[in-house]
Amino acid sequence: MYPKAIDDLIASFEQLPGIGHKTAERLVLQMLNNSEAYLSSFSNNIARIKSEVKVCPNCFFYAEDGLCHICRSKRDQSIICVVELAKDVVALEKMQTFNGTYHVLGGRLSPMDGIGVDDLRIKELIKRVVENIEVKELVIATNPTVDGDATAKYIAKLLEKTGVIVTRIAHGLPVGSDLEYADELTLFRAMQGRIKL
Amino acid sequence: MYPKAIDDLIASFEQLPGIGHKTAERLVLQMLNNSEAYLSSFSNNIARIKSEVKVCPNCFFYAEDGLCHICRSKRDQSIICVVELAKDVVALEKMQTFNGTYHVLGGRLSPMDGIGVDDLRIKELIKRVVENIEVKELVIATNPTVDGDATAKYIAKLLEKTGVIVTRIAHGLPVGSDLEYADELTLFRAMQGRIKL
Repeated sequence: MYPKAIDDLIASFEQLPGIGHKTAERLVLQMLNNSEAYLSSFSNNIARIKSEVKVCPNCFFYAEDGLCHICRSKRDQSIICVVELAKDVVALEKMQTFNGTYHVLGGRLSPMDGIGVDDLRIKELIKRVVENIEVKELVIATNPTVDGDATAKYIAKLLEKTGVIVTRIAHGLPVGSDLEYADELTLFRAMQGRIKL
Repeated sequence: MYPKAIDDLIASFEQLPGIGHKTAERLVLQMLNNSEAYLSSFSNNIARIKSEVKVCPNCFFYAEDGLCHICRSKRDQSIICVVELAKDVVALEKMQTFNGTYHVLGGRLSPMDGIGVDDLRIKELIKRVVENIEVKELVIATNPTVDGDATAKYIAKLLEKTGVIVTRIAHGLPVGSDLEYADELTLFRAMQGRIKL
């Protein structure tokens, strides 16, 4: 139906997660009305993304060159927050109150999906903790799922004898939510994690 | 938060209709996991879209070079279906039963939005009808809106004395729909357009 250039671009969009054929078609037809300048910058930005985005050799968050902006800045080196993915760092940084550093594992242990210890940056984490005597605490902020919890426990076990404190972020009721709509497991964890007022 | 390359690509995505910041962020982070080959073809496809997609000089549908694939193929030249936008041609072609040609107006008359006769390809349509004695019928398939109807009437008026039959696609209940949920205007048009069984 369409000229090949349109079909090709529709096919490119369709490979993105959550974008079906109809949406891809709508986006491409819309783009035909966009300015030449916008399209060439869009095209150029896609071409750059892979080559210009690197990984921080210390915490494995996104970096442009060498250390990421978090590892480079004056942050508390005694506390490391361990997360599954780089986007979790972005979510935590939005708090604007955590002043420690991060460690991006690259996923969580998941025997079902064939993801084992060697697929994650656990070795690098241990090395970082052992080599850096400044490190006092590891806050494990993997997701509150079965796999996330297992990953947290595995790391805690590995560091048992190093004297480094390993903590887990709290699970409980989200602020502003309604007790009535919380699931049993969340309520159970909220009850378990109760603190003295 | 992110390296500049990521922020730039997020900004590009955000300009697309229906894509907000969160979605753009999700797409870009996903793209970092995509293959170099996919990204370079995606980038290339965007760069091509404007230069490789032309407009058919006869019907104003998308074309690669010269006439579009519909005008070039052996279609009934005696009947022209007049639509607002190129995507309407795609919708009608999906029927696979219309064997005539098309004419893309490029919109509908809309005094409220400042779109007048000279903003549409009405002159080109009249010229095409007048110069081509083969043309017998014009099926106006502008959208069933106030503006679409007015555009249809305007074109019919212009061609009144040419002897060319000007028809309007039928308005009524969509197939498979429920009478109960149809709006009054659709029901009124369905009643008006009733045909003898």
